[in-house]
Formats: sequence, C-alpha cells, structure tokens
Amino acid sequence: MNFCNQCGEKVTLKIPQGDNMPRYVCGSCATIHYENPKIVAGCIPEWEDKVLLCKRAIEPRYGLWTLPAGFMENRESTTQAAMREAMEEAKADVEITSLYTVFNLIHINQVYMLFRSRLQNLDFGAGEESLEVALFEEKDIPWDQLAFPVVEQTLRYFFKDRAAGQFQARMGDFQDRQTLLSVSLLDALHTPE
Amino acid sequence: MNFCNQCGEKVTLKIPQGDNMPRYVCGSCATIHYENPKIVAGCIPEWEDKVLLCKRAIEPRYGLWTLPAGFMENRESTTQAAMREAMEEAKADVEITSLYTVFNLIHINQVYMLFRSRLQNLDFGAGEESLEVALFEEKDIPWDQLAFPVVEQTLRYFFKDRAAGQFQARMGDFQDRQTLLSVSLLDALHTPE
Repeated sequence: MNFCNQCGEKVTLKIPQGDNMPRYVCGSCATIHYENPKIVAGCIPEWEDKVLLCKRAIEPRYGLWTLPAGFMENRESTTQAAMREAMEEAKADVEITSLYTVFNLIHINQVYMLFRSRLQNLDFGAGEESLEVALFEEKDIPWDQLAFPVVEQTLRYFFKDRAAGQFQARMGDFQDRQTLLSVSLLDALHTPE
Repeated sequence: MNFCNQCGEKVTLKIPQGDNMPRYVCGSCATIHYENPKIVAGCIPEWEDKVLLCKRAIEPRYGLWTLPAGFMENRESTTQAAMREAMEEAKADVEITSLYTVFNLIHINQVYMLFRSRLQNLDFGAGEESLEVALFEEKDIPWDQLAFPVVEQTLRYFFKDRAAGQFQARMGDFQDRQTLLSVSLLDALHTPE
C-alpha cells in the first residue's frame, strides 16, 4: 500500500496512538488503513458415496483438483458464500448441512470455512474457473493432484469420519503451505486434561 | 474508496471482465480493489458459575457491557485473536475450549466467531478500551445494558445450554442490527427433513 484510498496522498507505516501494531496511516487526512484476514468459504458436495471436485482453470494451481471454494463477499453469509461458489465453479446446486473444517492459514491471512453439503441434482458442469467437474468415490480421489493442503486435509477427515460412522467438525492452523500446526475438534479445542 | 492505494490515481466502480459484481478498479494501473467481510473474534471467559464482561470505554456503545471481542488481525489464528482480545480488553488470561457461536452480520459485513473459554486466574482488570471488567452470575447479567445483539444472543444460548447440561454450537445470520434471520446448530445447519 502506497497511497490513501480516501484522499490520494501518501501513506506511511506507523503505530497509531493507542494501538500496538504498525498500520498504513495517511499523512494528509490521518485515515488508518487496517488490513485483516479474509474468509474463504467452500463445501464438500456429496452425492451418494461420491464427492464433487473441480479441476482448476485458473492460477494458482491451474489443472489441479479442488473443492468449490472462494473468497466470501460483502453482503452475504458464510453459507451463502459456500453455495454461491459451488454454483459458480461447478454449476452445482447444494444444500449446506453443517460446518465441517475451519482452517487458519496464518501465513497468507486466510480463514477457510468448509461445509458439508448435499448435491441437489446431477445438473452440474464446469463453471468459468473450472476445466472439468466430476464426482469421485474415495478410491478414485486424485490425492497427488489436489490443489491445496486444506482441501486434502478436509477430504482425509471426511472419508475417515465416514468410515467411522460419525462426522466431527475440526479447527486447525497451518503455519505455512504444508505445515499443519494443530487440529482439534471444534467442540473441544483445548488439549484434553 | 476514491483513489488507488497502489498508484494514487482515481478509481471507478465497475464490473471487471469475468466478474459479476462491481469493484473499485484503478483507471491507471488496472488494480482491482476487492472488499471482503472481516472476522470479529471473541470469547466467553468462564469462572465457576460466572462469566466475565467488559464495560466499553469506546464508541460505539460506550458504557454498555460486552464480551471481549474485536477484529482478527493478520498473522494470527481465530483462537489467538480471541485470546488477545481477552487480554487487551480485560487483562484476562483465557484458555479457549470450543467454538460456540458464529454469526453473520450481513448488514455490516462482519462474521463473529465467539468461543467458550476458561479464565485461568482472577488477575483481570480494565484494559484501555474498557471502563470496568467484572464477573457476573446469570441472575446479575445486565441484560438491558448489553452493547450488541450478538453478545446478548450468545449469552442467552450459553445459560440455556448450561441449564440443559449440554452445550451446542450455533450459527446464525443477522440481517440488520436487531433481526436474527435464522439460527441452526453448527453440526446440523439444514432444516430437519
């Protein structure tokens, strides 16, 4: 950030009075420009024993497979965002059924919120950001061609929970692209005593 | 937003190619300035049969009571944000135990994530943004002097769940300051069939 988006003058990085972190502050109109994490909302579209994946038609990770997910927009809820992304990326009509994984991607200031969902029909297809969209049974998941570790991790929990007959929501932190620092059940985030 | 924070030239509101929503786009360097919801992270600090509340020393809602909560910062996780806010606003050392309520405040582009937590000791006190910090039993909660509907709603669920002997995480949407559109259990967001 170089300029104030309010008045167009130069900004400088400094700690505002009463604050404890450096912020971009306008030297002219004194506006403080805060920067905060973004939410990425998405879902696991389920159909019988299969899940729907999208092959990415955009960078990053062009040509690799992912769950439909994207940045939550203003004026929508997290579940609306997840449903919209399923429609945009996979032309898929889903009903959101539960929050399943929450991952903090601390290194890139993103919070993933991935939901379980029921695919409502088979009228899906590649949206503009997808090369291809398909349903996969567990044995056919392209594990070595998944776009993002959060997607791989979520799918591994999903199939493990399904085999166990009980789904449990989880929260975890990635400290970099590959390093999952910790994961806990959402209803018991503390270390057991 | 009037100016591009990258190059300082004027921005205009238009729908970029391949997009379907209006964005602020720079007429000079073509940077697209996306705006997204912010996460407000906070907690219910619990001590025996009491919860800790803070009396606000800042606007909005100066002088009213709230749970410690605030905007999640870059380079932290949601639980770290909740712990930091408890320390900043109430000098309170808490251990986060579970995600309890997630509220979409669609009218102001905020997503509240409030956690249950255990207060670790009684060395709390008013931080810079609080006039006063105190523990309250259920019967003493100042219901008519709470700062925000999300806080009131979360506390009502908390005491109801505690009386029932079972805590259940919930997600809900506010469409304006007072109107709670829908609330569901986090592990079953769909309407029961």
